[in-house]
Amino acid sequence: MGLLPFYNEKLYASLSTQTKIMSDPRLDLPQGTLDILILKTLALAPSHGWAIAQRIQQVSRDALQIQQGSLYPALHRLERRGWIRSKWGASENNRRARYYELTSAGKKRLAAEEVSWGRLVAAVSEVLGTA
Amino acid sequence: MGLLPFYNEKLYASLSTQTKIMSDPRLDLPQGTLDILILKTLALAPSHGWAIAQRIQQVSRDALQIQQGSLYPALHRLERRGWIRSKWGASENNRRARYYELTSAGKKRLAAEEVSWGRLVAAVSEVLGTA
Repeated sequence: MGLLPFYNEKLYASLSTQTKIMSDPRLDLPQGTLDILILKTLALAPSHGWAIAQRIQQVSRDALQIQQGSLYPALHRLERRGWIRSKWGASENNRRARYYELTSAGKKRLAAEEVSWGRLVAAVSEVLGTA
Repeated sequence: MGLLPFYNEKLYASLSTQTKIMSDPRLDLPQGTLDILILKTLALAPSHGWAIAQRIQQVSRDALQIQQGSLYPALHRLERRGWIRSKWGASENNRRARYYELTSAGKKRLAAEEVSWGRLVAAVSEVLGTA
């Protein structure tokens, strides 16, 4: 916390509130970014789709709100590529839900994506003069 | 420099070299990110297309290489939206080249995009545990 050059607790909290009010479309995630968030969330624990989106929203303090229309295509894409696998299980309220977990290929992919994300942020920050 | 949690001078330099060797597709820029880089570059000085791409590449120490196939559609899109405007001029080697400059609407847009980018990075960093 507080390590990012443009990170400012108060500003961030106020912007985060605005996100919900304004539903700012700029926080729609680029596809690659959504993938890394899903892989990271599943690296912590297997989970069903809705819980993945909810956890991302919570951890980002509501800044990242993943719509179902983005989430499920992303899950299917990641499964097709062999980075996650799924099986049916029971959700907290005892309904059938599809559970997703990271494969070992997915773990490697996550590590690579984390490096790429770091590089992208570093490079863009250089151009923006915030590095 | 050195402020980003995942920024590491040596790692970055070695990865940057790999980018060229491997032509790693992961540093392909999400569309919104390319826009902000172009607007930022033009905020420093009016420029022609090729020089914009070259400057972004230089400042990011080769991490960001903008292809013509991405650059020109982005410039046209930004011009259509009124954020930049262009006119013909002479390039350094005295050839005719189209020069782009930021409009006042473009300045506002850049400021908004910088805030959004900072929020996105902060939010993703929270999820990745690098914040």
